[in-house]
Amino acid sequence: MTIPDGERLARQFAFLTEADRLKSVLRANLLCDASRQENSGEHSWHLALYAMVLADQAPEGVRIDRVIRMLILHDLVEIDVGDVPIHSANGTAHGSPDICAAEAKAAERIFGLLPGDQASAFRALWDEFEAAETPDAVFAKSLDRLQPVMQNLAGGGGTWTTYGVTWAQLEARVGAKIARGAPRLWDWVKEKARPWFG
Amino acid sequence: MTIPDGERLARQFAFLTEADRLKSVLRANLLCDASRQENSGEHSWHLALYAMVLADQAPEGVRIDRVIRMLILHDLVEIDVGDVPIHSANGTAHGSPDICAAEAKAAERIFGLLPGDQASAFRALWDEFEAAETPDAVFAKSLDRLQPVMQNLAGGGGTWTTYGVTWAQLEARVGAKIARGAPRLWDWVKEKARPWFG
Ligand SMILES: [Ca+2]
Repeated sequence: MTIPDGERLARQFAFLTEADRLKSVLRANLLCDASRQENSGEHSWHLALYAMVLADQAPEGVRIDRVIRMLILHDLVEIDVGDVPIHSANGTAHGSPDICAAEAKAAERIFGLLPGDQASAFRALWDEFEAAETPDAVFAKSLDRLQPVMQNLAGGGGTWTTYGVTWAQLEARVGAKIARGAPRLWDWVKEKARPWFG
Repeated sequence: MTIPDGERLARQFAFLTEADRLKSVLRANLLCDASRQENSGEHSWHLALYAMVLADQAPEGVRIDRVIRMLILHDLVEIDVGDVPIHSANGTAHGSPDICAAEAKAAERIFGLLPGDQASAFRALWDEFEAAETPDAVFAKSLDRLQPVMQNLAGGGGTWTTYGVTWAQLEARVGAKIARGAPRLWDWVKEKARPWFG
């Protein structure tokens, strides 16, 4: 390391304190008991737990500890950009070029708080998640789409009601992504979700 | 596995949905901006991020991915028992025999929702954390004590104000535990915290 230890720790804690703000970023979906909106910090924890539990549903070659790390930091950019719900703006906002550019800028600022070696490593893991090409990233993305489905099922509709989502939209925007990384999980969840849409 | 796959998934999702309740367990300490109390779900996420960032401060032999997994599930028993603040009841409630017995019962129920093999594995990891004897568990415990110190420093006092904590109490209840697993971290944080106590 090229910076003295005290300076390294100061940067690490500056990042960890900044990260606290993710707990104040609200997502569209609710808790399972529908008592309030979920925040992106607790959502990231829940996803890490999803990865631990559903590890045996991951395709061969997926390294779960990398998936867990990816999920822990995947939403940090929302500190600057906010959460962009999958079903908002009739499904066109999430992943739009404007949002992606804003998220890349946020990644630069937020991971840039860390010491250089960690800034690069964290940024690379986040880029890998966003690109959704490696088996680890594809599986992580599947879990990120799966968890809100379970929240909506437990909580009586949630964002499906808010955004008037149809079964065809759910299959296109959510099901296809879950199935890509975890086909058996989508098979199972699909059967539970289908009746909700009448 | 001895149960058919559908039944296995049903158990895994029952556990993951039950785990959602950890987001409604409030801790004594506040967010860094002092806007509200922190919940145990988002706290667990923050600790996992602490482990990722402070990995290079861990003693030799600590396996960070096991630490991360431990931290992700370390507070699940609070779904039944609630959070027991370190400084409450003048420092005597946390770790009392009654609380430990209630937490063991909660672990039985909550991890018992999982398929048998996972119930055992998760329970063993939680037991290891609680026993605080292995290097992984000792480091995980250090982070669990460290993070609220940083929250209090950022937020203007937090639980130190609530419970009228003295410097001697902080050193005994918190500092000693941080120093056990991460001496350099306590050295650094001690210097930042000492002035707060006048
Ligand atoms: Ca997100």
